[in-house]
Amino acid sequence: MCELLALNANTPTDMGFSFRGLSRRGGASGEHADGWGLASFTPDGHPDRPSLTLLREEAPAAFSALADQLAERSPKALVSIAHIRKATRGVVALENCHPFSRRWGGQTWVFAHNGDLQGAIALGDRYLPDGSTDSEAAFCWILEQLDHSGVDSSNAAAVFEQLHHCAAQLAERGTFNALISNGQWLFVTATSRLHLLTRRAPFCKATLADPPLQVDFSALTTSNDVVTILSTEPLTTDEHWQPFQAGESLLLQAGEVIQRSRHGVRPAPAAQTPVP
Amino acid sequence: MCELLALNANTPTDMGFSFRGLSRRGGASGEHADGWGLASFTPDGHPDRPSLTLLREEAPAAFSALADQLAERSPKALVSIAHIRKATRGVVALENCHPFSRRWGGQTWVFAHNGDLQGAIALGDRYLPDGSTDSEAAFCWILEQLDHSGVDSSNAAAVFEQLHHCAAQLAERGTFNALISNGQWLFVTATSRLHLLTRRAPFCKATLADPPLQVDFSALTTSNDVVTILSTEPLTTDEHWQPFQAGESLLLQAGEVIQRSRHGVRPAPAAQTPVP
Repeated sequence: MCELLALNANTPTDMGFSFRGLSRRGGASGEHADGWGLASFTPDGHPDRPSLTLLREEAPAAFSALADQLAERSPKALVSIAHIRKATRGVVALENCHPFSRRWGGQTWVFAHNGDLQGAIALGDRYLPDGSTDSEAAFCWILEQLDHSGVDSSNAAAVFEQLHHCAAQLAERGTFNALISNGQWLFVTATSRLHLLTRRAPFCKATLADPPLQVDFSALTTSNDVVTILSTEPLTTDEHWQPFQAGESLLLQAGEVIQRSRHGVRPAPAAQTPVP
Repeated sequence: MCELLALNANTPTDMGFSFRGLSRRGGASGEHADGWGLASFTPDGHPDRPSLTLLREEAPAAFSALADQLAERSPKALVSIAHIRKATRGVVALENCHPFSRRWGGQTWVFAHNGDLQGAIALGDRYLPDGSTDSEAAFCWILEQLDHSGVDSSNAAAVFEQLHHCAAQLAERGTFNALISNGQWLFVTATSRLHLLTRRAPFCKATLADPPLQVDFSALTTSNDVVTILSTEPLTTDEHWQPFQAGESLLLQAGEVIQRSRHGVRPAPAAQTPVP
């Protein structure tokens, strides 16, 4: 199993504080020592559309000089997705590190997953995994479904419905806590462990659980800022993290939840099911 | 066309100084504003084998906060490969940014290219491009050739011969200045523009051409360090950069050239040739 972290905000925001909490679990205080990754959609260079930076490393985040550097100062982004990996399927290698990225509908999409999926996932001929994880196969399968659905990639509501439908099908095969983004908005879905926290005015101090570190967001923000953080486990000890309900999917934009849906989560059957 | 930068050293070495020179050309003093990337093989986490970090951004390096951070302090690596892109084939998008990475022979291989190749490159069924550049197609084709050759991926001399043979075939289609590495050694080939510089004791001061910046390597190194830099254009004004001969390929390990070969470069024919 792995751990997820994401940010969605209405103003370019540094995720360093939260990333420090996550990366500590990548081999130091946690067992997720098999690689890590960070995708950030920043307004750098292209003011009209956020541009994507993707960074992946096949070594433990807790001992990575680059992860340490990013914990001090990470790209100021509108959407960020981070992941630390504990290998359950696939070797320890760069191509098995999340986030994964692929092109669909004229946009680049980024995906990270926590969980295990049973059985082989049927692949089409357009999206084929580079690595050997169930996660990347699930991402390829999702993109194939989007492609076949004929949905317009700029129609957030329609894409949300498709993604939620895919999430419900994948949830029948096991644990599917996942994050998907095109930089415009962030889709989040959970079958087991995922927490949400929105920071907005009046901003307060927050204390990281590990390492014990405090930050005063009132000194770092303006009163208009809205910043939502998603994390497998609550990262701070003095804020109200909301757990996801099993089967819940959210669509976020500019730090706000703009769409919400829930499917019934059935436990994965013992025998391998046909391809979802 | 694009610009290449690489480092190969016998001790983990920061490429920040050279990277600063390169990244300035990515949209500020140069026209290579369509994305950039950096692959580093560092000893972080896995002392037995270098681990790979891969970072790509679809925005200009010259205006990227992350590129700026890496110019101050980049991962201390045994092999690093950087690239700034000026799009000639394929849209400005993450999946078209170099370096590319793929798995072959139980190792992850990294590839960056400067040049243009004529005609469609025949692809097999194992390595398919994610993006739409001639460069990534060439990389996939090379890996397919390595795969079919039956060569042992740990046999440096045999892999060098195969790569040089592939480079000669690709050179018939246009400009092929390229870098390939598995973290153990670095393969370098050129048909037109590429320069090499080896720094070893006694270390001196060096002055970056742009921005004008001086570094005293004698203060940053030990007398045993051997560091070779490859760059499309010489980055410093007071060191002896050696230009590659057309058709020359080198194999580097621990900062030293361990193998060398040269093929005849024929100009690409006007009509499209059959697949190489």
